[in-house]
Amino acid sequence: MSLVVLGTVALDTVKTPRGKRRNMLGGSAAHLAMAARFFTPVNLVAVVGKDFPLSHIDFLRRKGLILTSLKKESGRTFRWEGEYKGDMNAALTLNTELGVLSAFHPELSDEEKRMKYIFLANLDPDIQSRLLDSIHSPKLVALDSMNYWIRHKRRPLLGLLKRVDIFVANDAEARELSGKHSLLDAARKLRRFGPKMILIKKGEHGVLFYADNLCFSLPAYPVTKLVDPTGAGDSFAGGFIGYLTKVKTINKQAIKKAIAYGTVIASFNVEGFGLERTAELTFKEIGARLKSYRRNLSL
Amino acid sequence: MSLVVLGTVALDTVKTPRGKRRNMLGGSAAHLAMAARFFTPVNLVAVVGKDFPLSHIDFLRRKGLILTSLKKESGRTFRWEGEYKGDMNAALTLNTELGVLSAFHPELSDEEKRMKYIFLANLDPDIQSRLLDSIHSPKLVALDSMNYWIRHKRRPLLGLLKRVDIFVANDAEARELSGKHSLLDAARKLRRFGPKMILIKKGEHGVLFYADNLCFSLPAYPVTKLVDPTGAGDSFAGGFIGYLTKVKTINKQAIKKAIAYGTVIASFNVEGFGLERTAELTFKEIGARLKSYRRNLSL
Repeated sequence: MSLVVLGTVALDTVKTPRGKRRNMLGGSAAHLAMAARFFTPVNLVAVVGKDFPLSHIDFLRRKGLILTSLKKESGRTFRWEGEYKGDMNAALTLNTELGVLSAFHPELSDEEKRMKYIFLANLDPDIQSRLLDSIHSPKLVALDSMNYWIRHKRRPLLGLLKRVDIFVANDAEARELSGKHSLLDAARKLRRFGPKMILIKKGEHGVLFYADNLCFSLPAYPVTKLVDPTGAGDSFAGGFIGYLTKVKTINKQAIKKAIAYGTVIASFNVEGFGLERTAELTFKEIGARLKSYRRNLSL
Repeated sequence: MSLVVLGTVALDTVKTPRGKRRNMLGGSAAHLAMAARFFTPVNLVAVVGKDFPLSHIDFLRRKGLILTSLKKESGRTFRWEGEYKGDMNAALTLNTELGVLSAFHPELSDEEKRMKYIFLANLDPDIQSRLLDSIHSPKLVALDSMNYWIRHKRRPLLGLLKRVDIFVANDAEARELSGKHSLLDAARKLRRFGPKMILIKKGEHGVLFYADNLCFSLPAYPVTKLVDPTGAGDSFAGGFIGYLTKVKTINKQAIKKAIAYGTVIASFNVEGFGLERTAELTFKEIGARLKSYRRNLSL
């Protein structure tokens, strides 16, 4: 089974207490797809500009991602510049340059339109909606968003949520969209917006999963070598959706294992700048850390 | 094996969005002992004033606590008044009246002095130290404190930490005492102060356990019926230390199970005002919720 991942491919400039990198390959779709590829073929749907290094394209292709619908438009690639201080709990955005993203119209191949598993990573909800319109009969649709769209495109986002099975949000986004401070209350409210499953990412505190008959928390994997948190949430989501796409089953055990895989891959992702660590990651390493994570949770 | 619990027995006045209660039985030692009693005999070491209702003493005795060293002094019982708003994440202290606590000199019976398992619940570190001095040969000493002592009695507290096996702290306390924002960094720093095991309570986010060769997080049990968070941390600590006292073993499996029991009992404690819910709690209910908690964590 293949997974369609729509989102951003970006050039990230990031400063953390561990150092600084300029114009790294980044973006929600890149991090998500790089994590999901361990489980399933991934079709990456995004746009880059004329300035996007060929070496990045080669890299994504070498990692096995299917780039049929990665558009190259005239104009500059979407850029994000951010800084993390102290314990790196929150990113301070220094600069955002939309570039080709501002006029992005995703177009899918006929094969992609027939795919069943769709992750709409963080992007303008109108673009996410258009992509979903072009899918013939989706089986599982997951969505991530961000505070900017919650504030500026609330109505389209709420409309889109009715068509989504899994809503993935971080704690701040869940609180802002629901107007509830308690994350359990927030999850309940978000459930009423449409998605059957709510997955709230709490950073170092792990995740809260909420559905009508199933609610639980799982912790993060304690990271001892934090280098750059950029992409942690997207690589979590990528491992999660990648595993669900692979097993083609949605039940309690599959959801928990998907969360565990997402958790483990995210814990590797933050050990290097951008995609450095995830690029070299092997399934054997993922398996070993999953075993340790699982062992810590077995009571 | 018996457990000695030193701490406060208080009259709590609490207001939450669910209602208000005046002069309830409360305090760190009361909540801790009421949770630990499910696993082991508990000797409660504390002081109350002349105004302390006999009915509360009867209640504690009926619940099986050993009150040999519960002193009654002339003067007023320690009182705390607090309020929780919104999602009840943090207590706002409205009033504290030390009363008999300000001149408290704990005295143990000869039998208690020979006991091996000691929990020094939140109290002046000088008083905690004096109690520890009187124990002949402790096997396991756990300590809890609070921001007030971290600020005003840092030196005695640091001295005491050298004599302690397990330091239990909430996230704010761990950060304040260590000067580190990241909880993993905080735990590492606290480890260097002496205690071999650091247990950081993160409220709705569960706990982080840290020792030289063992570090993991466990989530909280999602509470759907939050009434009053007072005593959650102490009842967690009580379930934790109670179980360790019962099994007389410190290994990874025992620690995880102790944390699970603490987590489950705390999740009941907050379903009622003060000790209302914990007072009626049965071991059967604890077992059923433990099973559900464990099931949610099995990957």
